[in-house]
Amino acid sequence: MRTQYCGLTTEALLDQTVSLCGWVHRRRDHGGVIFIDLRDREGLVQVVCDPDRADVFKTAESVRNEFCLRITGLVRHRPEGTTNANLKSGKIEVLAHELEVLNASVTPPFQLDDDNLSETTRLTHRVLDLRRPQMQNNLRLRYKVAMEVRKFLDENGFIDIETPMLTKSTPEGARDYLVPSRVNAGNFFALPQSPQLFKQLLMVANFDRYYQITKCFRDEDLRADRQPEFTQIDCETSFMSEQEIRDMFEGMIRLVFQKVLNVELPNPFPVMDYATAMGLYGSDKPDMRVKLQFTEITDVMKDVDFKVFSGAANMENGRVVALRVPGGGAMPRSEIDAYTQFVAIYGAKGLAYIKINEKAKGRDGLQSPIVKNIHDAALTKIIELTGAEDGDLIFFGADKAKVVNDAIGALRVKIGHSEFGRKNGLFDDEWRPLWVVDFPMFEFDEDNQRYTAVHHPFTAPKDGHEDLMESDPARCLAKAYDMVLNGWELGGGSVRIHRAEVQSKVFRALKISAEDAQLKFGFLLDALQYGAPPHGGLAFGLDRIVTMMTGAESIRDVIAFPKTQRAQCLLTQAPSEVDEKQLRELHIRLRNVEPAIKA
Amino acid sequence: MRTQYCGLTTEALLDQTVSLCGWVHRRRDHGGVIFIDLRDREGLVQVVCDPDRADVFKTAESVRNEFCLRITGLVRHRPEGTTNANLKSGKIEVLAHELEVLNASVTPPFQLDDDNLSETTRLTHRVLDLRRPQMQNNLRLRYKVAMEVRKFLDENGFIDIETPMLTKSTPEGARDYLVPSRVNAGNFFALPQSPQLFKQLLMVANFDRYYQITKCFRDEDLRADRQPEFTQIDCETSFMSEQEIRDMFEGMIRLVFQKVLNVELPNPFPVMDYATAMGLYGSDKPDMRVKLQFTEITDVMKDVDFKVFSGAANMENGRVVALRVPGGGAMPRSEIDAYTQFVAIYGAKGLAYIKINEKAKGRDGLQSPIVKNIHDAALTKIIELTGAEDGDLIFFGADKAKVVNDAIGALRVKIGHSEFGRKNGLFDDEWRPLWVVDFPMFEFDEDNQRYTAVHHPFTAPKDGHEDLMESDPARCLAKAYDMVLNGWELGGGSVRIHRAEVQSKVFRALKISAEDAQLKFGFLLDALQYGAPPHGGLAFGLDRIVTMMTGAESIRDVIAFPKTQRAQCLLTQAPSEVDEKQLRELHIRLRNVEPAIKA
Repeated sequence: MRTQYCGLTTEALLDQTVSLCGWVHRRRDHGGVIFIDLRDREGLVQVVCDPDRADVFKTAESVRNEFCLRITGLVRHRPEGTTNANLKSGKIEVLAHELEVLNASVTPPFQLDDDNLSETTRLTHRVLDLRRPQMQNNLRLRYKVAMEVRKFLDENGFIDIETPMLTKSTPEGARDYLVPSRVNAGNFFALPQSPQLFKQLLMVANFDRYYQITKCFRDEDLRADRQPEFTQIDCETSFMSEQEIRDMFEGMIRLVFQKVLNVELPNPFPVMDYATAMGLYGSDKPDMRVKLQFTEITDVMKDVDFKVFSGAANMENGRVVALRVPGGGAMPRSEIDAYTQFVAIYGAKGLAYIKINEKAKGRDGLQSPIVKNIHDAALTKIIELTGAEDGDLIFFGADKAKVVNDAIGALRVKIGHSEFGRKNGLFDDEWRPLWVVDFPMFEFDEDNQRYTAVHHPFTAPKDGHEDLMESDPARCLAKAYDMVLNGWELGGGSVRIHRAEVQSKVFRALKISAEDAQLKFGFLLDALQYGAPPHGGLAFGLDRIVTMMTGAESIRDVIAFPKTQRAQCLLTQAPSEVDEKQLRELHIRLRNVEPAIKA
Repeated sequence: MRTQYCGLTTEALLDQTVSLCGWVHRRRDHGGVIFIDLRDREGLVQVVCDPDRADVFKTAESVRNEFCLRITGLVRHRPEGTTNANLKSGKIEVLAHELEVLNASVTPPFQLDDDNLSETTRLTHRVLDLRRPQMQNNLRLRYKVAMEVRKFLDENGFIDIETPMLTKSTPEGARDYLVPSRVNAGNFFALPQSPQLFKQLLMVANFDRYYQITKCFRDEDLRADRQPEFTQIDCETSFMSEQEIRDMFEGMIRLVFQKVLNVELPNPFPVMDYATAMGLYGSDKPDMRVKLQFTEITDVMKDVDFKVFSGAANMENGRVVALRVPGGGAMPRSEIDAYTQFVAIYGAKGLAYIKINEKAKGRDGLQSPIVKNIHDAALTKIIELTGAEDGDLIFFGADKAKVVNDAIGALRVKIGHSEFGRKNGLFDDEWRPLWVVDFPMFEFDEDNQRYTAVHHPFTAPKDGHEDLMESDPARCLAKAYDMVLNGWELGGGSVRIHRAEVQSKVFRALKISAEDAQLKFGFLLDALQYGAPPHGGLAFGLDRIVTMMTGAESIRDVIAFPKTQRAQCLLTQAPSEVDEKQLRELHIRLRNVEPAIKA
């Protein structure tokens, strides 16, 4: 039907006859001649319809935007002064000899180049939305990433093995999507939250290196950037240490950025332990572009008069930190007020600060509503520990550690990204990857008064930490690692437990009874008994990686047919009602249909 | 942990120290020395544990089959006379210097090399079953096929785009798997039976060339070789003719066979229209290895006395065929009886035959219970049309066409594959691909007294057949094509309808009301209005391709974690019961749980 793509028609084809298929991007009548910008996947080409060719011209007069055309014509130079450097085809045009309307179009509900469409409009008319260059680019870049990942893993001996989509419900972690079974009345499959257990079984089964780019499902209340179904680059390997695993996958991400964006990520990525990340940034996925750090002053504040500080400093799980903002003394009061409101979102009850006007003057050189309630020694210590200089500003967080970490962590990022931060060298607009390692094995769940797994219950403890699992769970660290980039978690994983007795120990620490463990994870415990190899791996969130790489505003902009935050597809109107007959076959009924007759 | 794979340790590493990880495949004590065949993904290597190294020897004494070990040792020549030509590592052995038990194993429930395990045993202990060389090979070959497909499609500009797994239920075709929605009470998602509509939308959205290797779901009563979830290589392209599409994907399959099996498939594949395939083989997926064909004798049998023949010949939708078996005269009576029982499975009421002893003698040279009721002219015509020679045997099918096609079609294959067939040159043990084209658009559904789509309702009619859709649907042919290999359908597809008015016409021919069409397929009809391009594609069944290529007995042998024919996973015990709380959240209840209080 065509000899090549519109967008790739260049002066290399001068004086040749070409056939092109595509859509009318724009039609202009100019000096008795009709110009059509014809668009296909690869871009635009200018087609000239001359009145000399009456049939072509007549058809050209009838076409409208988004008509689908086939054109045969001669490639020639554009007249001087009319070339377009933005197009690959910008030096040439095609003089149409034949023009066929392959399909007409009704008038689209919006202009494809309108950048102010609501998301509802875009998702309802997704097919037209996908014709927009930005969406074309996003999905093609997504493909490139996936393909580079596959090539890398292939070259490194990883094998793509498909694991089941219809699998077993294990009500740990997130909520499952369930699928009623017709053949086995009253039973349900679950869609996988991840192939975690299957990939471990594949290691026990001697596949050595596994990967899969696969859909996972979580029926969660959707936050801004979550989807009910999302895509995971899921990897597992046997006989590799934590360091070797991290090196392997760091290499993969580095290669992908190189090949797809022509960006060189640092080699090696910096590594930071979890405790340091929480200490310095209040986050296990710190945005390393922001040049601000917490200063720990909990101990220093234990005996100050200012109750907000001393209260938090003496509280169990309390924390007091300072965030020095170099040059922040110049920040206007209105900006400080805005930050005070901002940290309230994260539960902070206020936002104390000190401006360092002239530190040589001691207390008198400090400007702040709170200094009067802080004794000299403590003030001196704050200045000393933060390294504050004249003209700086110090913000404070004092509360339960979680509130401080969330609030001041978010404030740190907010200031870094602000106009002030960018102007004052507090933000470094580069790709800043980071490994965060040595996560705790367990965290205490206050609501249920028991420990839960930070990563998942199949994560191995660090060497030498096995006994801590029962003696002091809070101090037990895991062979778990997250890859973080500019404040986003790209992926994470761990070395897994390969010995059945260690796995049982973890279940005991989590207060999962032996019976329960057998019922839910019996097939894993069983498999571990047959010489399971040391193994580990990780999983990356493909949607998230591509969102970052494209600079898209939302994960929905890198998915062809996403769901809304109400978990609906506006294009197909899914989910929808189904026939009573279907429900009957599945042995279920709707709950809101109460029996007609009551006692 | 290791320097290379066990199975790849060769004489190139002579006199070097290597580290290996793997499983004890076999342990032998021989002349005071312990030999361990250590196995990993790439194969076996012989490890020697000498009593000189007391610690190594002591550990070696304790290991059992399937223990997971790490060994460091020296590569040396095997003693003369002990080399093993079946192993890549067969010329060397590794003298162990260090031996570490990475994990012990309890005694496996079966020997890995036991070839007589029941499928229930294998699926229950799938992890051990997957360690068997055949299963390792099957899944690695599966991966190679998928990867070669991806490379081919990538090079040809196809882009992998993910379509939704949680989508809309359209109760046409097979039964959907449903997923109750928690957020949208009373509504359900369906798992996709295929990405058909989404891939068409992607063509309208200007992605030009799409592919996906993706799971599809059909809740059917499981036949021998069906799975609830199966994997499709799904492809679609714009602006290509039927011929171009077939050429492209024929090239893909040819390349896959070349790269993976080193097999050259014919170039080009033969092409046969549907009517010819049904006429000559009674099947739209004829096994072309079998050198037997039907001879149409319906018209010839209309006036014979033998009622079985004349009745079928004069029946509406009746058919009478002859199947000449060269040399079949030598077939013993017992074999003919067995075939008579065999065709009964397909609904045939009997199996008439004639042995051609000496055709020069006319009627007297024919041996058969039926010849007496067939007049001379008809007998002569049978001999003439079949080209039967002395020593041949002719089987007959006479019934409704469907019964004849199924029964005699199956008989044809059965005879071809039989010992008799193989000995008599009726079977040609090669790869025999075939395109079957020009399928009918519609078939008449007797039960519901209406036409249904043979392929699916989005298939385009052949050029010039548009008007037949309403005037004579039975004669309307489609731009549909199946790729057939040795009697299996590898894949199939069609050119799609790209014009909304043609699509509406098809819905009318199928007696789908405009309202119903809008409700179910409104988003497609809507998309077609915006200059939808001419497009088409096809889908291959990956499981089936790999089953053929590996020579596996069942599709379950090329899937890591398959379901049984009861749609159960014996390993994880899915599907299973779920908590009442989960059902409540999904707004459903089980049907067999009746309300406790009745009126």
